[in-house]
Amino acid sequence: MASKFYAIIAGVGAGTGRSVALRFAQSYPVVLLARNPSNYTDIVTEIKSSGGHAIGISADTSDLASVSAAFEKIKKELPEKNLAAAIYNVGGTFTVKPFLEQSTSDLSSSLGSNAHGLFNFAQATLPSLLASVQQSPPHPPTLIITGATASIRGSARFSSFAAGKFAVRGLGQSLAREFGPQGVHVAHVIVDGVIDIPRTRGYTANDGKEDGKISPEAIADSYWHLHTQHRSSFTQELDLRPYVEKF
Amino acid sequence: MASKFYAIIAGVGAGTGRSVALRFAQSYPVVLLARNPSNYTDIVTEIKSSGGHAIGISADTSDLASVSAAFEKIKKELPEKNLAAAIYNVGGTFTVKPFLEQSTSDLSSSLGSNAHGLFNFAQATLPSLLASVQQSPPHPPTLIITGATASIRGSARFSSFAAGKFAVRGLGQSLAREFGPQGVHVAHVIVDGVIDIPRTRGYTANDGKEDGKISPEAIADSYWHLHTQHRSSFTQELDLRPYVEKF
Amino acid sequence: MASKFYAIIAGVGAGTGRSVALRFAQSYPVVLLARNPSNYTDIVTEIKSSGGHAIGISADTSDLASVSAAFEKIKKELPEKNLAAAIYNVGGTFTVKPFLEQSTSDLSSSLGSNAHGLFNFAQATLPSLLASVQQSPPHPPTLIITGATASIRGSARFSSFAAGKFAVRGLGQSLAREFGPQGVHVAHVIVDGVIDIPRTRGYTANDGKEDGKISPEAIADSYWHLHTQHRSSFTQELDLRPYVEKF
Amino acid sequence: MASKFYAIIAGVGAGTGRSVALRFAQSYPVVLLARNPSNYTDIVTEIKSSGGHAIGISADTSDLASVSAAFEKIKKELPEKNLAAAIYNVGGTFTVKPFLEQSTSDLSSSLGSNAHGLFNFAQATLPSLLASVQQSPPHPPTLIITGATASIRGSARFSSFAAGKFAVRGLGQSLAREFGPQGVHVAHVIVDGVIDIPRTRGYTANDGKEDGKISPEAIADSYWHLHTQHRSSFTQELDLRPYVEKF
Repeated sequence: MASKFYAIIAGVGAGTGRSVALRFAQSYPVVLLARNPSNYTDIVTEIKSSGGHAIGISADTSDLASVSAAFEKIKKELPEKNLAAAIYNVGGTFTVKPFLEQSTSDLSSSLGSNAHGLFNFAQATLPSLLASVQQSPPHPPTLIITGATASIRGSARFSSFAAGKFAVRGLGQSLAREFGPQGVHVAHVIVDGVIDIPRTRGYTANDGKEDGKISPEAIADSYWHLHTQHRSSFTQELDLRPYVEKF
Repeated sequence: MASKFYAIIAGVGAGTGRSVALRFAQSYPVVLLARNPSNYTDIVTEIKSSGGHAIGISADTSDLASVSAAFEKIKKELPEKNLAAAIYNVGGTFTVKPFLEQSTSDLSSSLGSNAHGLFNFAQATLPSLLASVQQSPPHPPTLIITGATASIRGSARFSSFAAGKFAVRGLGQSLAREFGPQGVHVAHVIVDGVIDIPRTRGYTANDGKEDGKISPEAIADSYWHLHTQHRSSFTQELDLRPYVEKF
Repeated sequence: MASKFYAIIAGVGAGTGRSVALRFAQSYPVVLLARNPSNYTDIVTEIKSSGGHAIGISADTSDLASVSAAFEKIKKELPEKNLAAAIYNVGGTFTVKPFLEQSTSDLSSSLGSNAHGLFNFAQATLPSLLASVQQSPPHPPTLIITGATASIRGSARFSSFAAGKFAVRGLGQSLAREFGPQGVHVAHVIVDGVIDIPRTRGYTANDGKEDGKISPEAIADSYWHLHTQHRSSFTQELDLRPYVEKF
Repeated sequence: MASKFYAIIAGVGAGTGRSVALRFAQSYPVVLLARNPSNYTDIVTEIKSSGGHAIGISADTSDLASVSAAFEKIKKELPEKNLAAAIYNVGGTFTVKPFLEQSTSDLSSSLGSNAHGLFNFAQATLPSLLASVQQSPPHPPTLIITGATASIRGSARFSSFAAGKFAVRGLGQSLAREFGPQGVHVAHVIVDGVIDIPRTRGYTANDGKEDGKISPEAIADSYWHLHTQHRSSFTQELDLRPYVEKF
């Protein structure tokens, strides 16, 4: 794969991040960011064993210095490559409890993983995405952001989480309006349902109906579609949910 | 193509309808509906000449009897086939003028092409789409509805048009909530920009910038993506606009 | 009350319409429109007996000729008066049933009462509201439209109703953008809950909790507030729901 | 004024905060919070001179300790009084510049004034608002939050500001859903336009048309209306903009 381009996925774990990484690795070398190397080592191995190119880097996107260090490393490992696609898939842990039982750190944590994390990641990736615009990329350079039900709907006991997710949506929409006309596609995806990953095996969603949890491969398919959209026809926002999900 | 399934596109002309028809004809026999045969004859020929199967039927979707007659004809021409995909792409002519210069017929025309037309088309296609759910279709049976900027934003001088487009969106959203859990994917697409078709050649959109008008092939790609989405991960609504479009 | 202005309420019955009429009758002569005189006669009596001025006129807002006849009558009864406020509160009967059990007449009825009705009412009232702008009205001339949950949310089994309510919202938003800059305040109110009127006495809403149904007097208070807003600070849309209503 | 209740306004300056304070001071003792005493001293004097009761307290709502200290002071100054109304009107300074010229501190500052500030203020006021529910308040205890255009629309060069304002909206909507059923009215107001205050005298808004800037007294009138809404008919969100504002 002698691509001049690479893709980066922040927030890689056993679910969406892994599936997106595998999907984009079919076309690009991929860089996987996660706080904990245990979240990406297996995926790096999986991609390499099927002939792809993958690098895992430990980074905390909520921390500017950590993000900067990660991108220094990328410059060394993938010199002269620019970004084809950057996916921000960091969810962070989140608090579900009554507002008056929440503390400042619940809010800080949500804003850190979500707003600060996307801010840092976008600052680090947009210059490279902009540079790619001039280099005949196979598809318009793309920044895709994973959102959630709480991106468009505040709920009792999810107040800090909603604050973070709304902030990400506002930031992403602003970036779409600023960088779209410069040729970079910024899209926000509302993932509205429980994702079918090892960690959610025990949950019952939609009364246990078949396909009642979202397949991460299906999410990856839609992310890939967003990436391949022609610049005359960009999607800024779409929702994804199981056919049986109430909304 | 020995598919048990077919696709139908209502509102076929030189733009989106044609591109969607060509795209879906790669996988299914397609039926093209338009008021005027001149809108589909060339496309039928084009599809057949590239090895596909296409039927054109003259029908006015705003008229229940006309829609019923069309589906009687389909039953004869494609016996024992059920629907894989139904696309409602009827725009109708629309009025752009101050509200106090509009007449009842401007509103009736907008509601006819949009609300009544989708209503009639959905009544005619949903039983067949539901039947397909049980027949191992390659993808979940799908009803896709073309919307516009006016589907989510009322504007001065577009009041009748907005009434029709809002109505379609409300109807489509209701159908999504009713038929999604039964396995039929209902999606609404907000086409937010000028489409690059023969009729709009003379318009300048986005200061004449390259790709400042929406490519109908790009729309067809997104419609096809919607059709192929896994049922654990349906999109109910997405927007499509040129990278340089203000929104 | 020697006001140069009057108010008109279309869709008067035992609920919101009556309360709004009583509220506006404290400041203006009021005209009450309803299909059936039995819907307004008691209210006319009630207003007169408390010193106000009220006229009831039988009219079907979905029928242009009926609306025109009503306004001819108003010109005779209230010569030289212009409109301070016009309230469109027509709900129409509505169908709650599965989409495939609905007929064209269910949709036509919803679009008639809602989209056509508002269209006809707005055509009849806006010239007078515009004329009032120049006549030092006590408050900016106002057109207020009653919406419902279905104005912003399509639901299974409410598809025709949602089509009509979405259409009204799109039309109202367009009118706001067209007539706002000319000094007429157009507002849309999403009434999200069961209204506490004689007809709903038998319903249990919100588990029968106190004030779990919307007080029509409370709605009238908010309509009056909308009417009195300064033109530097118009509300285009607000929602109203019981404190215990899920949303 | 022997009210058992008081009102508090955070973010008092020469504009909305002052007008809201004057309006609520007609019915309640008011506490005014601002970082800088120069922002409230004149207003305290103005309220006292017209027979009202007002206390100014210096506090930085983005700082939990500062907020706690302020409420300790309030407990001493107004013992045994509970809150009738709490208004969060803190805007913070905001950055208007291209995203790649923004720094982390621009984002932190926006999230601090907006998300953290509202979080701290809501944590401090909701227990007292809840306590008031049981004490026969004249109107349902109310938390009103001032939003902006950027609360619902991200824009190029306003990315950090939009992140903060979206976060506030998500938090406010969550609080409305959590505390509404407990009797506390939480409302979010989208102030969409330039407010007519000393600081904006030099700006031209809406081509300099009369009333093209929002009157802060008009905002205060709508806040007071929100406060007085019956609990069967709460508004969660409304917009306010000049009649000539494009939206």
